[in-house]
Amino acid sequence: MSLDAMVASILDRIGPEVGQGRVADYIPALARIEPSKVGIAVATLDGNLYTAGDAHEAFSIQSVSKVFTLALALGRAGSDLWQRVGREPSGSAFNSIVQLEREHGIPRNPFINPGAIVVSDILLAGGRPKETIAEILSFLRWLADDDTVAIDAEVAASEAETGYRNVSLANFMKAFGTIDGPVADTLDVYFHQCALSLSCVQLARAGLFLANRGVDPVTGRRVVADYRARRINALMMTCGHYDASGDFAFRVGLPGKSGVGGGILAIAPGRAAVAVWSPGLNDSGNSHAGTIALEELARETGWSVF
Amino acid sequence: MSLDAMVASILDRIGPEVGQGRVADYIPALARIEPSKVGIAVATLDGNLYTAGDAHEAFSIQSVSKVFTLALALGRAGSDLWQRVGREPSGSAFNSIVQLEREHGIPRNPFINPGAIVVSDILLAGGRPKETIAEILSFLRWLADDDTVAIDAEVAASEAETGYRNVSLANFMKAFGTIDGPVADTLDVYFHQCALSLSCVQLARAGLFLANRGVDPVTGRRVVADYRARRINALMMTCGHYDASGDFAFRVGLPGKSGVGGGILAIAPGRAAVAVWSPGLNDSGNSHAGTIALEELARETGWSVF
Amino acid sequence: MSLDAMVASILDRIGPEVGQGRVADYIPALARIEPSKVGIAVATLDGNLYTAGDAHEAFSIQSVSKVFTLALALGRAGSDLWQRVGREPSGSAFNSIVQLEREHGIPRNPFINPGAIVVSDILLAGGRPKETIAEILSFLRWLADDDTVAIDAEVAASEAETGYRNVSLANFMKAFGTIDGPVADTLDVYFHQCALSLSCVQLARAGLFLANRGVDPVTGRRVVADYRARRINALMMTCGHYDASGDFAFRVGLPGKSGVGGGILAIAPGRAAVAVWSPGLNDSGNSHAGTIALEELARETGWSVF
Amino acid sequence: MSLDAMVASILDRIGPEVGQGRVADYIPALARIEPSKVGIAVATLDGNLYTAGDAHEAFSIQSVSKVFTLALALGRAGSDLWQRVGREPSGSAFNSIVQLEREHGIPRNPFINPGAIVVSDILLAGGRPKETIAEILSFLRWLADDDTVAIDAEVAASEAETGYRNVSLANFMKAFGTIDGPVADTLDVYFHQCALSLSCVQLARAGLFLANRGVDPVTGRRVVADYRARRINALMMTCGHYDASGDFAFRVGLPGKSGVGGGILAIAPGRAAVAVWSPGLNDSGNSHAGTIALEELARETGWSVF
Repeated sequence: MSLDAMVASILDRIGPEVGQGRVADYIPALARIEPSKVGIAVATLDGNLYTAGDAHEAFSIQSVSKVFTLALALGRAGSDLWQRVGREPSGSAFNSIVQLEREHGIPRNPFINPGAIVVSDILLAGGRPKETIAEILSFLRWLADDDTVAIDAEVAASEAETGYRNVSLANFMKAFGTIDGPVADTLDVYFHQCALSLSCVQLARAGLFLANRGVDPVTGRRVVADYRARRINALMMTCGHYDASGDFAFRVGLPGKSGVGGGILAIAPGRAAVAVWSPGLNDSGNSHAGTIALEELARETGWSVF
Repeated sequence: MSLDAMVASILDRIGPEVGQGRVADYIPALARIEPSKVGIAVATLDGNLYTAGDAHEAFSIQSVSKVFTLALALGRAGSDLWQRVGREPSGSAFNSIVQLEREHGIPRNPFINPGAIVVSDILLAGGRPKETIAEILSFLRWLADDDTVAIDAEVAASEAETGYRNVSLANFMKAFGTIDGPVADTLDVYFHQCALSLSCVQLARAGLFLANRGVDPVTGRRVVADYRARRINALMMTCGHYDASGDFAFRVGLPGKSGVGGGILAIAPGRAAVAVWSPGLNDSGNSHAGTIALEELARETGWSVF
Repeated sequence: MSLDAMVASILDRIGPEVGQGRVADYIPALARIEPSKVGIAVATLDGNLYTAGDAHEAFSIQSVSKVFTLALALGRAGSDLWQRVGREPSGSAFNSIVQLEREHGIPRNPFINPGAIVVSDILLAGGRPKETIAEILSFLRWLADDDTVAIDAEVAASEAETGYRNVSLANFMKAFGTIDGPVADTLDVYFHQCALSLSCVQLARAGLFLANRGVDPVTGRRVVADYRARRINALMMTCGHYDASGDFAFRVGLPGKSGVGGGILAIAPGRAAVAVWSPGLNDSGNSHAGTIALEELARETGWSVF
Repeated sequence: MSLDAMVASILDRIGPEVGQGRVADYIPALARIEPSKVGIAVATLDGNLYTAGDAHEAFSIQSVSKVFTLALALGRAGSDLWQRVGREPSGSAFNSIVQLEREHGIPRNPFINPGAIVVSDILLAGGRPKETIAEILSFLRWLADDDTVAIDAEVAASEAETGYRNVSLANFMKAFGTIDGPVADTLDVYFHQCALSLSCVQLARAGLFLANRGVDPVTGRRVVADYRARRINALMMTCGHYDASGDFAFRVGLPGKSGVGGGILAIAPGRAAVAVWSPGLNDSGNSHAGTIALEELARETGWSVF
């Protein structure tokens, strides 16, 4: 079957799963998203794009953004970054503070909230939040090769208003010295990064360098070093779905990163980057229908890395 | 470079690392192993074998055995197995009991001690330990295509004598109903499985089916279903090195399972199975020099799945 | 009001509470106790006894026995005992193993299960369980001044058969070196001590020395040193009701120790020892009606130490 | 021996202990206190005062203030207060966040930091921090019968500047809905309450109502209801010294509350209130010499409640 037909067929088959689960409702901008939305985009190394459903509609990528800020921060701080954040699965929820206390303020990995806040702090690097936010946005536009990629100001504002737990996490790490900047500035960066708004098409395109050892296969531009791309993929595999990362690896067999907005970016090394979106979340906080779509896709294409 | 030359060169280069770390000393049979031992064996899908160092000397594979008992138990219990053991990284040490209390006696995955004890219990299935132990041994001999594979009776006896923590874990799960059999019988199986003694050559050979979607490429015999082989690999990637699984994925990029005897089995899907052995352990309880050897091998061959 | 009238009046008033809560059912001998049972006995320093209800019927005192084995063990090991068990509230359930892992096998206090198992081990002192059990029984008979005090063999056997969690706790501590004796022997002592069977009258009488700075006021015999009696009371106040100790101190204001059989021993220093019994347990595993009875008694007598 | 002579003798004997331990140094105002300071004041129900050493010198009472704000808040919110804060020992450090996550944002008791922050929030009651702070100060002046009691503005400012962990705790509870007010306002109250500055004489005098069932024995004014005074004492006994509360009860046998400034308030019900001050802290964060002084005093007076 052609990829085109396969993507269409998968969208068709997962229809009954779309709308199941629970749409994130902690901020109004997420709560009002139609649960019936569903999109898939597959960007292959040869520059082709295969889409189905609402693949061109922008959504809040939320924690999927952590992949990109990590890539940017590694370019900035290099391996020193690993002094301030670990690279092990957490064995607990995305915003758990228990692990931080036991491990003296060092988050387990860059894909749980406290880890991503540290990455934001590294990007801030004592500078002004506005400039760091602009830099992140530019990076995403460059990766997606699309200047319409945006940050949703309403989402960013809502995150800041309701983000008591993230404020708590950031201050907790500040008490341990893991955060350099003023907490408010670091969180300003973090809340804006979570508010990045991309379509499946843009997201798959932006992640393509990870499927190609760090080089954007379309433009030929190197984004990160070969070994860094592999390592980001490794982290996505072991830590990309919070406390359901093992299950995602087991079922899908691809590195992936999910967001509470219902998006997932998955990487098939040497082949493609895939983005799915469906707002209904399973008990682990990952897109219910999106995970099933990726499971089907991996099975039919044989793209599992295992 | 040929694989032969590569393997020899890696052994040469990791020389200074061999003997570093700490040899397991909780039982005499492990404590008296020479820290200077080091071996590598690479078994490729085409049936070739590349070795260096002490690759033909048998050692106690300890927890590496958990991969094989899982494969055997999945054949026996099928997916029902996942009712009694999870498939998520634990975020804690191999023998931690904390997680068990929080999660009502269900171990996080089959590669930490309590999870492997549950797998032993599934294999026991109400029968007699002697028969189950014989069955496990036969399975390993069949996989390794070598009838000299053995269980070290002294090691098994020592494990039983000093294994208070494993006795504790097993009784704890029994209190929750996760263990069916008499605790002593289940542990009898478990302690014998840990005492399996294989050389790097035998171990790589025995693991080859995992690199070939469940079929032994030499004999053509199917060991487990295609999807089961992939899933075992996925579990090795996310959970194979206890609380250093993320780091192993990050550095090596291959599914792997380590044992406290200093052995590691790594799988390069579609290519090869690799066994390394060096008794000195790092702080996470995994072979220090062995991990570095695999890191080098993955880098030079480009076999990382990422 | 006279104490006689007060005790009768309290029994009358708590009538509607008796039978509420949940009777322990993990062993048959406890499960078949009538939920409607209720008894109170107050033994005052002047040798008088005030009783109501089923105060003369023997019941399984279970964890209340931990007070007496501690007194006996302190006489044996002296303050060295505190090298192997702490004296802080645990902040968790009576049989939690989490704290043990964090604190390297040293139980928080002698009134949670692992702590009491250590006390049993100290009493065993490398000897034979039968003799230690006989010694504990003699001690209780001496304290209660009543040779009919007995150990319920059926209860002891049931505890041993179903006590997987206690087996787990004991082996866990053995792994850390907190337990000296063979685990099975130590547990043999522990399971028999839990099976001590006393009536409210016997229990109050046996505890009277704690209300009188270590001296039995009736016989004039010193049981423990003055400061030891105070310290046992202090431990009962801070740790006597598992994770509801703070609430008991808040509501009753007396040192007390509860058992899962529905009994509670409370001490009014300088005045009396009080035993209550009602099998229905509240969510914290302490006698529901018994706690209320003690709350009323403390309020009406003004015996709160605060 | 007269109390006067006893207090002098104790001060003399604990001399070698004074200066041992570690002076709190997280804010400059505490770090610069002379470690050689030591004072004792005993206020008896008959209105007499017995002092020794630096008993008239004001120091930062820090967490000892939590006793007084609890008394004030109970008068305000009544028993509803216990909907938002528990009354069990925590089994962990004063500023641990682990328990809060496990127990859904409800602090274990009002004497650990998060519990005291909730009490501050209850006192704030949606009002303005300045007014609440003024009210707390008035209350302390009234209790101490001394209008020179003050809040140290430098200490309050330092607490606010360095209090990342308390900011974290407050935001964490806000995320669970345990905190009503704006976090910054609630913390403003909290940081000022911690900065209350009293001498041993003032502190003992202020606590005297707790030794007299809620009535100031000198002025005859009722501060709290009889049962409330007893309950505050019960909480001081089980929770007053963080994770060393059991040890304090064991050694001293009196309700007590310590502060990181080196002060301790202890209550001998029906007899006296005692304040000690010595800045050197033991490993649990309580005054080293102060605890020993109270142990001696309790032993010599026989004031232990047990």
